[in-house]
Amino acid sequence: MGEVENNKQVIFKGYIDGVPKETDLEIKVTKTELKLPHNGSEAILVKNLYLSCDPYMRGRMRDFHDSYIPPFVPTQVLEGFGVSKVIDSDHPNFKPGDFISGFTGWEQYSLIKKTEQLRKIKPDDDIPLSFHVGLLGMPGFTAYAGFYEVCSPRKGEYVFVSAASGAVGQLVGQLAKLHGCYVVGSAGSKEKVEILKNKLGFDEAFNYKEESDLDAALKRYFPQGIDIYFDNVGGDMLDATLLNMNIHGRIAVCGMVSQQNLSTPKGIHNLLNLVTRRIRMQGFLQSDYLHLYPQFLEHVASSYKQGKILYIEDMNEGLESAPAAFTGLFYGKNIGKQVICVTRE
Amino acid sequence: MGEVENNKQVIFKGYIDGVPKETDLEIKVTKTELKLPHNGSEAILVKNLYLSCDPYMRGRMRDFHDSYIPPFVPTQVLEGFGVSKVIDSDHPNFKPGDFISGFTGWEQYSLIKKTEQLRKIKPDDDIPLSFHVGLLGMPGFTAYAGFYEVCSPRKGEYVFVSAASGAVGQLVGQLAKLHGCYVVGSAGSKEKVEILKNKLGFDEAFNYKEESDLDAALKRYFPQGIDIYFDNVGGDMLDATLLNMNIHGRIAVCGMVSQQNLSTPKGIHNLLNLVTRRIRMQGFLQSDYLHLYPQFLEHVASSYKQGKILYIEDMNEGLESAPAAFTGLFYGKNIGKQVICVTRE
Repeated sequence: MGEVENNKQVIFKGYIDGVPKETDLEIKVTKTELKLPHNGSEAILVKNLYLSCDPYMRGRMRDFHDSYIPPFVPTQVLEGFGVSKVIDSDHPNFKPGDFISGFTGWEQYSLIKKTEQLRKIKPDDDIPLSFHVGLLGMPGFTAYAGFYEVCSPRKGEYVFVSAASGAVGQLVGQLAKLHGCYVVGSAGSKEKVEILKNKLGFDEAFNYKEESDLDAALKRYFPQGIDIYFDNVGGDMLDATLLNMNIHGRIAVCGMVSQQNLSTPKGIHNLLNLVTRRIRMQGFLQSDYLHLYPQFLEHVASSYKQGKILYIEDMNEGLESAPAAFTGLFYGKNIGKQVICVTRE
Repeated sequence: MGEVENNKQVIFKGYIDGVPKETDLEIKVTKTELKLPHNGSEAILVKNLYLSCDPYMRGRMRDFHDSYIPPFVPTQVLEGFGVSKVIDSDHPNFKPGDFISGFTGWEQYSLIKKTEQLRKIKPDDDIPLSFHVGLLGMPGFTAYAGFYEVCSPRKGEYVFVSAASGAVGQLVGQLAKLHGCYVVGSAGSKEKVEILKNKLGFDEAFNYKEESDLDAALKRYFPQGIDIYFDNVGGDMLDATLLNMNIHGRIAVCGMVSQQNLSTPKGIHNLLNLVTRRIRMQGFLQSDYLHLYPQFLEHVASSYKQGKILYIEDMNEGLESAPAAFTGLFYGKNIGKQVICVTRE
């Protein structure tokens, strides 16, 4: 027998309706052996360093098995994207000390049996490890694939990004600026709006909570209309944007965080504009574009190192903070990409 | 002075709300001189033979000037697509006796000043002249451009067409069958359903008015899901279809006849499926694809002559029948493409 260690876990208590509450999750401590049997199973044992809080996880909290990803298993540990350090390996491609990113458990130590989609992280002193669940991970790649592959951007076009300071939105806006577009973002607080304008280089930004008439707000910020809408929220903002799109505009539908928690999502009334303005509205998932991941990594990592883009994280310390960090997403509590630091080493 | 003739006209009385009524139009008789001044104006004088009743015309009956086409002018003659015979011409490209298709007035004789978009019809004994506002006109070309350019069809895919016996839908379904797709159409009467199945070669068809649960109906006709939805109606059918699309499905949004008359269109609730199923939903107008018109004409005319496709018209006789023919569109009264025959020669 190897060394046995306490393993703190975040447990998914059961399927929910409505907005996730902290009490839908619970912290439990189990025991984990810090050694693997080396019997050809190709499993690895990891210590989790950083865990990613993502809105799509809400979709896994309902009893619905017909989606692109299965629901969480009630009473079992939550799972999501993370950055981890290999501590034991029965897999020829991984050795103790390797850093990896990919699906892992919301716990201190995880036994990972499905290793095909894990990515080895090339250590780089200039890039924080946690960025591999943010800027260089799923959210960053979502921004990259969505902007370049779905939005078909052209220099000089007018781009609107909702949830613009979030994990995906902040990179979309910066990529659009680098591409020569005019970019306006919406966010849910004054502080976020300041960050968009003063740190992230958006041309303009506004607090949607202060706008009683979203259509009027968009007309103010886009008197010449919107060519590209990168939609992270759905709902009323989408409906208002449909009234302000230019002919041959494109809407990349990335997520609909405003609708995730509603059993009957709000109705969208202005779709007739799709016809009259010949708009392409396209839903997408980053997982369909993985062949572009290497070029994404090179492009974005090098832009970051050259200081051309920033990435703002909201880091919570300790697994105990995980339920609050995750549920905070749905109230817009996070400023930037929400990450949980389990441990730094 | 030339010969002066009575000219019966259909007048647009004024902007409307809701469903068009026959009393929103009126028949008036004016006088028209059957000669043009030949002074280099490049105008032509035509006798109108066939007029096209199209749902998009409803959009021109409201006081809204920011669309792709301006509203009708109150108290003036209605306009739309038609087939006409040139009776006098001050334009070098047109001579008396030529048959043309394009925008004309809803009247017996029209003076046409804007001739750029008119098309000369090559007389063909095997193709009825009226087809130039249907199968070979705007609706046919809408079906062609929408199916081939917007739907990106592949052989063997599952295709759903709403308003399937209408001017556009009937050709979409037949093109899809010729392309090797499995095709189901919806329509609003038993008679139309029979035509779809027995005349137009659809694999299946159903009467949406007999289905209390559209989602259940679609699941019955598409147990394997829908790859392509050619949407002519919007509203509840679109919402139900979103629940039945396959991954990477495509929705061509052609018109939303169910929504045209509502000042607040019905809400669409299931757009989150665009993301999870990675659906492309695209609005389009045939006018963006006019470079393809020659190849369309060749393809569809030759398929028709070879008996590979049919085209069903609903022909009303006489300008007096125009108000009823037009308003009937919004109750699904027409079976096939609704045309008004002003005169046959």
